[in-house]
Amino acid sequence: MLVAGAACSGTGLFSTDLNSQGTEVGYAADMLNVIDFIHTNRDRYVSELKDYLAIPSISALPDHKDDVKRCAQWTADEMTRVGLENVQLIETPGNPVVYADWLRAGDGAPTILFYGHYDVQPVDPVDLWESPPFQPTVRDGEIYARGAADDKGQIFMHLKAIEAHLKKAGSLPVNIRLLIEGEEEVGSAHLDDFVRANKPMLKADVVVISDSPMFDRGVPSICYSLRGLIYFQIDVRGTKTDLHSGGFGGAVANPAIVLAQILAQMKDRSGRIKIPGFYDLVRPLSEEERAAWKRLPFNEKKYKKDLGAPKLFGETAFTTLERVWGRPTFDVNGLLSGFTGEGAKTVIPAVAMAKVSMRLVPDQHPDQIAKLFEAYVRKVAPKTVDVTLTRMHGGKPWITEYDNPFIQAAARAIEQGFGKTPVFCREGGSLPVVSTFQEELGIPTVLFGVGLPDENAHAPNERLDLGNFHNGVVASAVLYDEIGKIARA
Amino acid sequence: MLVAGAACSGTGLFSTDLNSQGTEVGYAADMLNVIDFIHTNRDRYVSELKDYLAIPSISALPDHKDDVKRCAQWTADEMTRVGLENVQLIETPGNPVVYADWLRAGDGAPTILFYGHYDVQPVDPVDLWESPPFQPTVRDGEIYARGAADDKGQIFMHLKAIEAHLKKAGSLPVNIRLLIEGEEEVGSAHLDDFVRANKPMLKADVVVISDSPMFDRGVPSICYSLRGLIYFQIDVRGTKTDLHSGGFGGAVANPAIVLAQILAQMKDRSGRIKIPGFYDLVRPLSEEERAAWKRLPFNEKKYKKDLGAPKLFGETAFTTLERVWGRPTFDVNGLLSGFTGEGAKTVIPAVAMAKVSMRLVPDQHPDQIAKLFEAYVRKVAPKTVDVTLTRMHGGKPWITEYDNPFIQAAARAIEQGFGKTPVFCREGGSLPVVSTFQEELGIPTVLFGVGLPDENAHAPNERLDLGNFHNGVVASAVLYDEIGKIARA
Repeated sequence: MLVAGAACSGTGLFSTDLNSQGTEVGYAADMLNVIDFIHTNRDRYVSELKDYLAIPSISALPDHKDDVKRCAQWTADEMTRVGLENVQLIETPGNPVVYADWLRAGDGAPTILFYGHYDVQPVDPVDLWESPPFQPTVRDGEIYARGAADDKGQIFMHLKAIEAHLKKAGSLPVNIRLLIEGEEEVGSAHLDDFVRANKPMLKADVVVISDSPMFDRGVPSICYSLRGLIYFQIDVRGTKTDLHSGGFGGAVANPAIVLAQILAQMKDRSGRIKIPGFYDLVRPLSEEERAAWKRLPFNEKKYKKDLGAPKLFGETAFTTLERVWGRPTFDVNGLLSGFTGEGAKTVIPAVAMAKVSMRLVPDQHPDQIAKLFEAYVRKVAPKTVDVTLTRMHGGKPWITEYDNPFIQAAARAIEQGFGKTPVFCREGGSLPVVSTFQEELGIPTVLFGVGLPDENAHAPNERLDLGNFHNGVVASAVLYDEIGKIARA
Repeated sequence: MLVAGAACSGTGLFSTDLNSQGTEVGYAADMLNVIDFIHTNRDRYVSELKDYLAIPSISALPDHKDDVKRCAQWTADEMTRVGLENVQLIETPGNPVVYADWLRAGDGAPTILFYGHYDVQPVDPVDLWESPPFQPTVRDGEIYARGAADDKGQIFMHLKAIEAHLKKAGSLPVNIRLLIEGEEEVGSAHLDDFVRANKPMLKADVVVISDSPMFDRGVPSICYSLRGLIYFQIDVRGTKTDLHSGGFGGAVANPAIVLAQILAQMKDRSGRIKIPGFYDLVRPLSEEERAAWKRLPFNEKKYKKDLGAPKLFGETAFTTLERVWGRPTFDVNGLLSGFTGEGAKTVIPAVAMAKVSMRLVPDQHPDQIAKLFEAYVRKVAPKTVDVTLTRMHGGKPWITEYDNPFIQAAARAIEQGFGKTPVFCREGGSLPVVSTFQEELGIPTVLFGVGLPDENAHAPNERLDLGNFHNGVVASAVLYDEIGKIARA
């Protein structure tokens, strides 16, 4: 699931007159029947969702292998129940992928590829849960269970919207393919291969993913850009073994100091990254975006206080939201060297290690940045030590312009479901699967998430607001209608 | 025990014509009798030393509390056996101090204060010992046991030298007081107070300590200067909790980067420490010292290879031995921040920690350097983080000029015992007790060590070369004679 960072509240970002438009345009009788059907089935949805959430499909734990399979089967069975066709449980070298489609909307209609994942995060520390993680429990209008927000609840929202269309209208206003994987929480190791090997089966005009939070409670949003990532481990070795700092201090380079010197040369005092060429491919933020973000009632004082930071910090020429949403970063994620216990040990460490990562924005490419980073480290590292660079996982940045017709269709759907004009935002995090679809299928993605930033997706007491869930079922049903009106690209 | 660093071999440092002098001067009949007695008692010494080494007086382990007490008692009993007087086992808040003296050398004779410690290091990992650490075993002319070199073997060497004088000459040529503590391996926590509270009992003209190695095998040496130490922990806090680097990267300062920037500003590229005023009180190395050290056959290529360093490094204006023996340092001893496990975790750490230390040389003072360091860190640290500095243990540098009469007396004694002119060297490490004596008693110290740099003082298979031990008994006996010839200061 996408982790949201900017815990700010705001409305009306890029607001157009969607609300009045939607009301003026109105919907056909079929669509009104569909929405009515959704409203009358609220309680049944919650009862069925509980069955889905009760399956402990933890992909990270081998002990739950059978539960994961059972959950894939449950997903497939539910697809059949709601009226989807061509339901398949497809084996991979890891957990099975569940596929289904409904492709009878007619020649002119566009096709949605819906992506989700039926696996969930582990539940430790389990004693912090107020109700058992796999005994779904409703409290104060929220359903508590592992997977409620991330991602079973949001998958189920779409299944119920599809069901409503097929039961009440006898058809869908759009073609749809569903691809539900079982390894998202362990890095989607086999998804790229699956997508590459099954392009005809996944042929579509737009990807829809509901695996992210909205901007804030009461502030539905459409996210149209994510940052990419590149991650490295830096290992600096000075000597064969740790040395006594009395006996050898002054004789050799200290690898922890050399590492500090390398890291200190990555950014200047104003927060600008010093790697030559690093900003060359950064797409400038448009004046329109910057102006819109500035209008957000972003409470920087509260944000700083919530974080407990003495002072916010970053590139001086940009606001905090601009820096988090639209600018690349360099961060140190970990440091380890020598003696780190209590007290004092007079050692010159043999080695020093740093984990570092860079968040990337359009149109930076991880391979390009990796080369620039490696060359720069080689340039600034002295010959007194051995430096090893290990490139770890990463992903490309993603953007679908907010005036893209699918994005605008999603905005109208959200407005109908939630009764509020959504804001358009970016996010600072990454969803690797978005890059995969962009790269392999060459089609835009719509992030259509209805979670909340504080629903503990990866922590104890994960939950999903049932009001947002029901609004989301309506919004999903409207989304198919809105996308159905767009001529096939 | 003092840890030696420069694993080089050399002879003739500051060599004077001691050898010929010693032979020319010759010794009185009494002294020759004493030396003869020592030679005829070699086997008995080893057998008695085994009893001493068999007591597992590990001060770091509460389980060995009784063994530590038993060892103190054994030391006291042996003092009585060799003919020392006023033997006392003195309680402290920690382990007892053992005291004895012999003060009947006459009004004009100087007084030696001999310091040693009867406690030993732990023995883990015990399975790496070739013979059990508390079953002393002789192999190839070396006695293997915990405490053999550090420090029971070297204490026993003096007790046997005293015994030889008292048994054969009926007196000692010098007054002597012995102070043997039981907490050296756990930081000598109660020694400073003991010394402060018992100055009349410890009144002397010179301190003699045998708790250090010689320069190299076959290269007896006199060490006349040690570096001091000051140790700090630096804690940098950015935010209340760790943050997701996607959601918050760009918003706040990364404490690991800030820490790296602080550390990187401690030294310039040439190895010079940038703390303003840091070198102000450094006593320049004399041209004579530098010239003598340059004449040492120090094999820098082998030294570098043994350490496994790609390149030696330090202040460009100084040689390796000068940097280790005579120049102050800044080292990072430990680093810890964020995620340090296998793989990648995209976290902005809340905190970053470094352990740092500086080795000091005459006439730097730890308090002065601490102030300069703290002021400099405050100056270079940005306001985006909270920085906490915690001062930890340390000690003053120490020097007794090599032309001091006691140092020269020790050189003559070593020459008689080992048949070789000793080299004069400094060491890069520290012996806090030396500072204590310098400060509290205001008298010079002679480091009269006969261990070898590779005798594993703090590691499995600790040992003491029995050839060096026997030469050391002779040298100690001669030392008393040589010091006895010096007029009381």
